[in-house]
Amino acid sequence: MPKAVVLLSGGLDSSTVLALVQQQGYEVYALSFSYGQRHNVEIEAAKRIANSANVAEHAIIDIDLRGFGGSALTADIDVPKDRSENEINTGIPITYVPARNTIFLSFALAKAEVLGSFDIFVGVNALDYSGYPDCRPEYVASFEAMANLATKASVEGEGVLKIHAPLIDQTKAEIIARGLELGVDYGQTISCYDPDTTGAACGGCDSCQLRKKGFTEAGVTDPTRYQNS
Amino acid sequence: MPKAVVLLSGGLDSSTVLALVQQQGYEVYALSFSYGQRHNVEIEAAKRIANSANVAEHAIIDIDLRGFGGSALTADIDVPKDRSENEINTGIPITYVPARNTIFLSFALAKAEVLGSFDIFVGVNALDYSGYPDCRPEYVASFEAMANLATKASVEGEGVLKIHAPLIDQTKAEIIARGLELGVDYGQTISCYDPDTTGAACGGCDSCQLRKKGFTEAGVTDPTRYQNS
Repeated sequence: MPKAVVLLSGGLDSSTVLALVQQQGYEVYALSFSYGQRHNVEIEAAKRIANSANVAEHAIIDIDLRGFGGSALTADIDVPKDRSENEINTGIPITYVPARNTIFLSFALAKAEVLGSFDIFVGVNALDYSGYPDCRPEYVASFEAMANLATKASVEGEGVLKIHAPLIDQTKAEIIARGLELGVDYGQTISCYDPDTTGAACGGCDSCQLRKKGFTEAGVTDPTRYQNS
Repeated sequence: MPKAVVLLSGGLDSSTVLALVQQQGYEVYALSFSYGQRHNVEIEAAKRIANSANVAEHAIIDIDLRGFGGSALTADIDVPKDRSENEINTGIPITYVPARNTIFLSFALAKAEVLGSFDIFVGVNALDYSGYPDCRPEYVASFEAMANLATKASVEGEGVLKIHAPLIDQTKAEIIARGLELGVDYGQTISCYDPDTTGAACGGCDSCQLRKKGFTEAGVTDPTRYQNS
């Protein structure tokens, strides 16, 4: 079985990617990051999902991005709630974490190189998303180009590294429909940026709203556990 | 004063870069990484250098790459000693750390973005070097291209990020000569991959050999404190 490195946040998108990767016959090495995020309870979700999926390895990497700040997810800045669809679709919100995907993919590159894997999977998505620059197709392509100059394998011609972003042009509803076909238990996942300590979702942050809309459009029941409900 | 992010390992090259950057009129934000390296004493050197140079900030980032392994610097693999010049100049040695510069530059990108800086400086060098893929000019250029698609500033058109590698085409002797003109105290720096706990250099690893050769070619006294001498 070829080996794949999968970035696993514990959310809906990356959990769907994990299922897709396993269906494609890869052995999965999942990476999650404890980066000082407000919603660190997503790590518990990632553990549940990795465990249910019986991955080859699930590593949790500790990097504290709170010292960098600049985001509502890592600094003492309120997570915006109950924004309109138009607000969500305009500009880059304060929940953007500077260079987060670049940092995560860099660690994935290290992991892939040590494993001898040429396949990194990431659940970024550029349709029903928060407008983050490091989720766009052109960003993913440029990271891949860089990665193919960064490693020993790239010099020694052992293979071409691919950054797979299989959800990048799908709507949240399409992702949910695909995941359900693959048997993903979305009740295990956490998308909320501001959950309580039990993992119950706030329901109002952009991520909760995108998730709710996805379940509604997919026409399936939302298994998310919301606060005060 | 414009702000610059400088990767500071505590070695000869990055200390020279720091001096160059200050001469160019930047306010320096130095980043060092405690990554589980065998030669973690280089962090103490980085602190001395940052302190002497009176930088605006010196952050030490903790990321443990030992879990990844795959290198004599982060795993229980002997550092090769007393290799010939031909051996040093052939292939990629076991001291190469998978994706290290990509990880370091990714954190530098996060720091630059939060600071509003568009200038990241790195002391990589592709002449008297260890053959690491992530020190080559084409790698640095591709990281820069990726970085300019990764951040909020890149979307909002606030500026173009530059990865400066001012030493990339210089010999070690040229770097030393330049650093001495700028007043760098090379006695504060540590290049050795396998120093003792006091920071005394082994004298035999590739990095020690490249450093020794540099001082010899520059015709200046090597202030390095070697073990058993």
